[in-house]
Amino acid sequence: MLEAVRWQQGALYALDQTGLPWRERELELRSAPEVAAAIRRLAIRGAPLIGVAAGYGVALELARRPDPEALERACELLRDARPTAVNLARAVDRVRSAALSAPAGAQAQAGLLEARAIHAEEESASAALAARGADLLDGVTRVLTHCNTGWLAAPGRGTALAVVAELAERKPLETVLVCEARPLLQGARLTVYELERLGLPHELIVDAAAPGLIASGAVEAVIVGCDRVAANGDVANKVGTYPLALAAKAARIPFVVAGPSSSIDPACREGALIELEQRAAEEVRSAGGRLLTLAGTPCRNPAFDLTPAELVSALVTERGVAAPVGVESISQLLAE
Amino acid sequence: MLEAVRWQQGALYALDQTGLPWRERELELRSAPEVAAAIRRLAIRGAPLIGVAAGYGVALELARRPDPEALERACELLRDARPTAVNLARAVDRVRSAALSAPAGAQAQAGLLEARAIHAEEESASAALAARGADLLDGVTRVLTHCNTGWLAAPGRGTALAVVAELAERKPLETVLVCEARPLLQGARLTVYELERLGLPHELIVDAAAPGLIASGAVEAVIVGCDRVAANGDVANKVGTYPLALAAKAARIPFVVAGPSSSIDPACREGALIELEQRAAEEVRSAGGRLLTLAGTPCRNPAFDLTPAELVSALVTERGVAAPVGVESISQLLAE
Repeated sequence: MLEAVRWQQGALYALDQTGLPWRERELELRSAPEVAAAIRRLAIRGAPLIGVAAGYGVALELARRPDPEALERACELLRDARPTAVNLARAVDRVRSAALSAPAGAQAQAGLLEARAIHAEEESASAALAARGADLLDGVTRVLTHCNTGWLAAPGRGTALAVVAELAERKPLETVLVCEARPLLQGARLTVYELERLGLPHELIVDAAAPGLIASGAVEAVIVGCDRVAANGDVANKVGTYPLALAAKAARIPFVVAGPSSSIDPACREGALIELEQRAAEEVRSAGGRLLTLAGTPCRNPAFDLTPAELVSALVTERGVAAPVGVESISQLLAE
Repeated sequence: MLEAVRWQQGALYALDQTGLPWRERELELRSAPEVAAAIRRLAIRGAPLIGVAAGYGVALELARRPDPEALERACELLRDARPTAVNLARAVDRVRSAALSAPAGAQAQAGLLEARAIHAEEESASAALAARGADLLDGVTRVLTHCNTGWLAAPGRGTALAVVAELAERKPLETVLVCEARPLLQGARLTVYELERLGLPHELIVDAAAPGLIASGAVEAVIVGCDRVAANGDVANKVGTYPLALAAKAARIPFVVAGPSSSIDPACREGALIELEQRAAEEVRSAGGRLLTLAGTPCRNPAFDLTPAELVSALVTERGVAAPVGVESISQLLAE
């Protein structure tokens, strides 16, 4: 299996996710603007993965030339590539700071080491949170998930899908219901691809069908990833996450959010303060390049929605599990 | 504007809704099997409209030949064309009974009269329920709707969209948020077409975005149609209706269901007893004829979901409004 991103001999290689599941093609990225562009057009995506890629993006800039102004411009470009995930800005800042605190001449090397450290941390976070999530959902064989949270979204085995894979290793799964995740179909394109590669039983559904299926008892748990978690436990994640949480609560089944602790933003008091990215109308008007409505139809296209903490049964991170989810359990998690 | 169905000189003419919004083409249907096939492949759709079309379908069979066995076969074929809406079976039974209680030789004429009566009743129901719905939502200028409920779904001006059109006549609307209604995109294809023809401001959204937009205060009310309403007020409607009801309740805005009283099935005690149609996996795998996932990906494709009565703020029919919705208010409505 191709890795989602890998660093090799001074370049970042990234599987172009816009071509999946049909075309497996690696991009060779040699500058920060190239990395930022790949993140913007979703060739690289998933909150933890864009953090890792952006870290390498700063390293690429550092290797180019020792120009402080250019470095600041590159960092800004990477930070602004997408607004919702906190991992992105945090990784950029970490690599930048590591470089700037190194002696002149050793900055590029220090930056690259930090980028590699972020990558390694996310990989080990994936393994740790998978084990914790599987402990929490022990024995569950029918789950529903949304968007894409496997190795294409986060280094290692991913976040929510890493938990699913770990569950499957402990006991054969009956089914994984996969929401397609309109408009960009990360579920239909990427999660189906990952589950097929993992050999796990799955069924694709339209997003609108998920709450009714949850109500009818089709699954025992819902597990999703997160783009940003506020200090109070409110969760920003792929649009369509909130209705899953509402339905899980009504059906009295667990609604579990899985992500590395790097997705928690303690500086953000509550969900309402998170900027939710609005994307182009064109994405709604079409699917797979095919126009679905009248050309020029006005659209609203929020890429994320907010799920209030009280609807989240548990937040699973590599550091531990917060349940119930709130200011206290989250600050405890971060203090550990 | 082309009518969704019209009877002319011994044939049923129906706008082929599978080609909309791009191709306006009328089908000429001259037999019950042709009508059943058009209903099955969704060229004719919308609970009230398929009832009207099926009534004419029986009339077409009656005009063909006076053969009791063939009549029963035709009625069965029409009844089985789709399972969820109650209007279909009811219209077939009404036309069949009207014919069978007429003297031999006058049966075809009696059947056609009954089919025309059903058509006229649905048209007047649309006008009456539009007025009642607009009274209920007086002053509302931002609404969200799902699937398709205008004149393409129900004779006259439709059901939920007739209420929206009536509201717009009383006070200019700010916006109508339209859910695309995957997998078959009745919102993106048909409701956008209708609102464009009506000149009303609208914005298309993916289904998954609706609950988050409702939570964010984007609309003042949600209004949808219904395929079947049980005696206790549980509502079967296009898949994706249930999450709208959950979100409206959480946001404390009205969730209004509009439909002719012919959509109420007093013989059905509760929603759990309604057969929810499961459609082909192929619909989920593609959009606009374009494959969206790996070929052969297993899918689940329920066409409808159930919204429990307690989530419905009001049921608006041509006979009156049931609010709160329950066994008592509904039986009162039907007794009026």
